Amino acid sequence: MTTQPTRPTIVSGMRPTGRLHLGHLHGALANWVRLQDEAECFFFSADWHALTTNYHAPEIIKQSEREMFVDFIAAGIDPQKATLFVQSHVKEHAELFLLLGMITPVGWLERSPTYKEIRENITDRDLALYGFLGYPVLMTADIILYKATRVPVGVDQVPHLELSREIVRKFNFHYGEVFPEPQPMLTAAPKILGTDGRKMSKSYGNTIDLGESVESTQKKIMGMVTDPARKRRQDPGNPDVCGIFYLHKVTSEADTITWVDQNCRTAGIGCVDCKKKLLEKLLPEQERMRVRRDALLARPKDLDDIVQLGTEKARAAAARTMDQVRKAMKLE
Amino acid sequence: MTTQPTRPTIVSGMRPTGRLHLGHLHGALANWVRLQDEAECFFFSADWHALTTNYHAPEIIKQSEREMFVDFIAAGIDPQKATLFVQSHVKEHAELFLLLGMITPVGWLERSPTYKEIRENITDRDLALYGFLGYPVLMTADIILYKATRVPVGVDQVPHLELSREIVRKFNFHYGEVFPEPQPMLTAAPKILGTDGRKMSKSYGNTIDLGESVESTQKKIMGMVTDPARKRRQDPGNPDVCGIFYLHKVTSEADTITWVDQNCRTAGIGCVDCKKKLLEKLLPEQERMRVRRDALLARPKDLDDIVQLGTEKARAAAARTMDQVRKAMKLE
Ligand code: SF4
Ligand code: SF4
Repeated sequence: MTTQPTRPTIVSGMRPTGRLHLGHLHGALANWVRLQDEAECFFFSADWHALTTNYHAPEIIKQSEREMFVDFIAAGIDPQKATLFVQSHVKEHAELFLLLGMITPVGWLERSPTYKEIRENITDRDLALYGFLGYPVLMTADIILYKATRVPVGVDQVPHLELSREIVRKFNFHYGEVFPEPQPMLTAAPKILGTDGRKMSKSYGNTIDLGESVESTQKKIMGMVTDPARKRRQDPGNPDVCGIFYLHKVTSEADTITWVDQNCRTAGIGCVDCKKKLLEKLLPEQERMRVRRDALLARPKDLDDIVQLGTEKARAAAARTMDQVRKAMKLE
Repeated sequence: MTTQPTRPTIVSGMRPTGRLHLGHLHGALANWVRLQDEAECFFFSADWHALTTNYHAPEIIKQSEREMFVDFIAAGIDPQKATLFVQSHVKEHAELFLLLGMITPVGWLERSPTYKEIRENITDRDLALYGFLGYPVLMTADIILYKATRVPVGVDQVPHLELSREIVRKFNFHYGEVFPEPQPMLTAAPKILGTDGRKMSKSYGNTIDLGESVESTQKKIMGMVTDPARKRRQDPGNPDVCGIFYLHKVTSEADTITWVDQNCRTAGIGCVDCKKKLLEKLLPEQERMRVRRDALLARPKDLDDIVQLGTEKARAAAARTMDQVRKAMKLE
């Protein structure tokens, strides 16, 4: 029943919980942009997932979602190639989540490293919630609803996908071979630091957002923390601990990267030179995204149409799968 | 937002996992028949719930469902008065289940007496499953999706409904007063024993089914276990431990019940007399149900229409509630 299509199907979602920044661009979006030419891609706003941690303040979700889709497109996602949609607008995600829950042992979920980790780290509210525990079940539904064969994941998410594969095996065992087992597609997520030298994250207030203005980007880069041990111009630096170098690696040409790597270590260049060099590439990129963002935001109807068409396409694919699921489970 | 309607709304479901018998009739259906004149009633086939314990053999569910609706109507449910529908055909149940799960602590569910009890009693398969743990969340969604104000429950289900009320309170606390707190409506479920003197249950093979033929009913009643201590005709009996007496209490007129009660204790009547007396009322009732069943089964299209119209009505009510839920949760 599961014939491997020549073109793989890839599903990936992002939680709309704030503005996207360069961390998102290089951690996920740049990869999505490459994938859209090689595979049938479904990229979605994981609004229900966002509720698992933001149930107490859900207003951020819809506020961010629109901007997030704008950022997707500004970053290079082409709605003609990839399907963009909203998870909660395709009710089949909830239906399949419910059905998969019937066969998923609670023990599998309790052992999930993310469940343990987030429970330990977020202490200001009770996260031992049923929906939060079931996050991997919903994630599995998201993926297999489109019969995804490959899922772009970081190393830390591999155990999650293994859990999805176990759920798929159990489903196929009980009800017949409906779903392909989704294979992990390891994506090297380059490290991106924020302006203060810590991991770039909205919660640290150290981000450079997608489409941030030229002025603001310039200001933030020029003020950004570099190798903290390089106190004076004549001190040699260590690019391996420098956020500016990390940005060079995802932004600049290969020879620039080599030039920085060598001249930083020998104090051949100062950090100001290095930052200016980065801005030569970064600013036009930011500007290009900003222009695309503004163009889209000026045509709200077009954006609505893109998401609506994508959602309808996703819904049709999901409905086809659910027909098979209900037949296999003898539910009709 | 929650004004108490003059006419209460009542929601109750039944799992389609086999033919209905006199235990179901007197435990639930007879009560439903009374309620349909006093309240806006939604009675549904709890097919998703049936999966929580029957995920390994789901074919029984759809096989039983049609017969179950026929039994509902044969027992006196009037589709003009009450709305009959299929849970899994109203996807909003799954959506609300997912959303309520986001705010329901795992601890509340683990402490549920039914979860503990069934986990301990059903040992032939692993029931520590995510869907099974979440059964009270789905039950809550079923009820409040129609803004039910009253829920017919037996004494043993009161803790479940209290859990539903807690979930409702938590929802209303986070997102505003969307749902009324469903109040328990205690229904005295009379004890009904099977032909072998144990609780009437399909798993014991001791049932008298709804609309069972006159011949078969007669044979089963005449062969039914009575007070096991009453060995001979001249021994006085104890009706309080006799399944025939329990059936008299839900079937016969008051004076017959008194007559049995007194004459059994004094050996004034024998069990054969007592059973014949029961059959005077039971057989016409069984026959009436059988005729209604046959009439319905002869018009499959009418039955389809009844369930489809009911499902559409339920869906419209559910959609109205979900609009309010999504607005309250800032999900649109
Ligand atoms: S020269 Fe460049 S890479 Fe080296 S520390 Fe300064 S900013 Fe970082
Ligand atoms: S007389 Fe009737 S109530 Fe008494 S033991 Fe016999 S069957 Fe039961």
